Amino acid sequence: MIRPTSHCMHRIESTVTHSSLSALSNLGEFGLISRIAAGAFADESVITGIGDDTAVTALSPGMRLLSSADMLLENVHFRRAWQDPYTLGRKSLAVSISDIAAMGGIPRWALLSHAIPRDLPIEFVDDFMRGFLAMASENRVALIGGDTCSSRSGLAISVTIMGEQYPDLIVRRSGALPDDDIWVTGTLGDAALALKLLENGEAVSDELLFRLLDPNPRVSAALALAEAGLATAMIDVSDGILADYGHIAEQSGVGGRIILDELPLSAGFRRLTADLPEIPYQLALSGGEDYELCFTAHGSSREKIADCMKKSGIAVTRIGIVTSSPGVNAVTPDGSRYNAQIEGFDHFI
Amino acid sequence: MIRPTSHCMHRIESTVTHSSLSALSNLGEFGLISRIAAGAFADESVITGIGDDTAVTALSPGMRLLSSADMLLENVHFRRAWQDPYTLGRKSLAVSISDIAAMGGIPRWALLSHAIPRDLPIEFVDDFMRGFLAMASENRVALIGGDTCSSRSGLAISVTIMGEQYPDLIVRRSGALPDDDIWVTGTLGDAALALKLLENGEAVSDELLFRLLDPNPRVSAALALAEAGLATAMIDVSDGILADYGHIAEQSGVGGRIILDELPLSAGFRRLTADLPEIPYQLALSGGEDYELCFTAHGSSREKIADCMKKSGIAVTRIGIVTSSPGVNAVTPDGSRYNAQIEGFDHFI
Repeated sequence: MIRPTSHCMHRIESTVTHSSLSALSNLGEFGLISRIAAGAFADESVITGIGDDTAVTALSPGMRLLSSADMLLENVHFRRAWQDPYTLGRKSLAVSISDIAAMGGIPRWALLSHAIPRDLPIEFVDDFMRGFLAMASENRVALIGGDTCSSRSGLAISVTIMGEQYPDLIVRRSGALPDDDIWVTGTLGDAALALKLLENGEAVSDELLFRLLDPNPRVSAALALAEAGLATAMIDVSDGILADYGHIAEQSGVGGRIILDELPLSAGFRRLTADLPEIPYQLALSGGEDYELCFTAHGSSREKIADCMKKSGIAVTRIGIVTSSPGVNAVTPDGSRYNAQIEGFDHFI
Repeated sequence: MIRPTSHCMHRIESTVTHSSLSALSNLGEFGLISRIAAGAFADESVITGIGDDTAVTALSPGMRLLSSADMLLENVHFRRAWQDPYTLGRKSLAVSISDIAAMGGIPRWALLSHAIPRDLPIEFVDDFMRGFLAMASENRVALIGGDTCSSRSGLAISVTIMGEQYPDLIVRRSGALPDDDIWVTGTLGDAALALKLLENGEAVSDELLFRLLDPNPRVSAALALAEAGLATAMIDVSDGILADYGHIAEQSGVGGRIILDELPLSAGFRRLTADLPEIPYQLALSGGEDYELCFTAHGSSREKIADCMKKSGIAVTRIGIVTSSPGVNAVTPDGSRYNAQIEGFDHFI
């Protein structure tokens, strides 16, 4: 049986329950909508939230609108066996907020669409929403709408994030200049290592697992950089530093040299990969889902960047230099070019 | 194998092809992105489109942001056997534009996320995008971003629409007043009848089929009503007039009486349902996916509304009256209450 578009189990706009999900059908008149809307962060910028054909919001005067969408699919982007619904809810929004951060923007509003399998326990949806709304609240993001449907296959989640920033503070991928420093926040490779261990059925420390399951978007650090005008280009590290800096290089018309020995690795990462001479570099260079910031800045900004990041409480490391010649190379401690496999992530799992 | 979020086949932000879809893997360096971005409508409001962490757009001064998201799932909202990819692309955006229209808003920007089965021919994606971008262009909507992933089950499409309007021109669901007229554009029930015929394996005329597969959002008619200040409340008819007017009634704290004989039915609809005494009413009242506008207006506005809709080239019909007592009733020609089944759509298929 096919059902017309609007015969979704719920659109978040709707206040009437037309549940066709057996597991969700006992919600009664309060419905999923009340559960979703209750306890959500909102501020005066939200003129009309959930409950009409569209949300109505007010952008701050003089600011530009930033918008981005991400889709997360069960068994493609996450596994229910590995990820509890609470952190799944958090992460579903975190990866989108990270995109706003990468522009130096202020995250403001989110739309959440999800296709929910019929056999999914209502507690799963509740925990997912608790996680989603906790991440929203921590980042002062208001959930203002979306769509909820019944899925015939796995759980599918689609999040739209909207944010804002003054035009001259927005940091793009295209502003890197030759001889700029290449910087990265936090540590690299932890999420990729956690995933590799999970794939292999090995034990994973909580510290590493958190980096994979519950990433923390670097909003305040990115905002501090943007407001101080320190970053010439910025991106969030979601596909590995080599690929993501590669986007900066390509869009800025430059190249780059990344010094392997400078890559920031966590103590847990170093401990677990001590016996594996190649894998640490590969994971740190090409492992996905770090959700750290990679940015470029003029060499004269080093002290200011250190001060700025200190105030944000985020570690920052200079990992290389922008080159005028194209191509992004990783350089080993002995100065030779390291043959990194940008798409090498799959080779480990 | 689980893949991290960012190891999507493509994010529309990305300009590098990491295709993991066998059917899409021959795209080469031009990639899906070039196919998507090429030929897309854009105007000066799009400061940064596809290709950075987020899009950057400029809202018109003094206007508010309108935003909404819809999800369409294969075998839930559409069947590939019944819907060609071109009209699927058109409809995926049309249903979202219809939400902006229902607020009296001006549609401006869209984000498109889709999860694509590995065996989907690349021609399907091309045709889908042609349809999507044609609908975008017709409504001056710019595609500014999104996400493209590989699906392990069916095709999943998620569209976010953003629009704008001056605050005092926005038409909500909550403004209907007792004794206002209830109006509807176009005709009702055609899409539901087409679906019923498809379900039953019966022949469907092109005229009816178009209403189901290629709905036309009533943007210009809605804008004309909003700019003239004629509509006190408005919604788009996606779940059937009874349910959708029900949202207006609920949010306005009123009720309504809908006169069955006044429901606008197309000639094709009347012809095909002539022998079925009950079904026409049920389909017209409760059939989904008409994507017409239902609005309320003061009785003194009748002539102005007729003039306004004449200029927009859209038929409009007065189908009932807002009541101060709660509850929405359909009234038969003999004046008695008709026992409509709001959720009755499923009973026919």
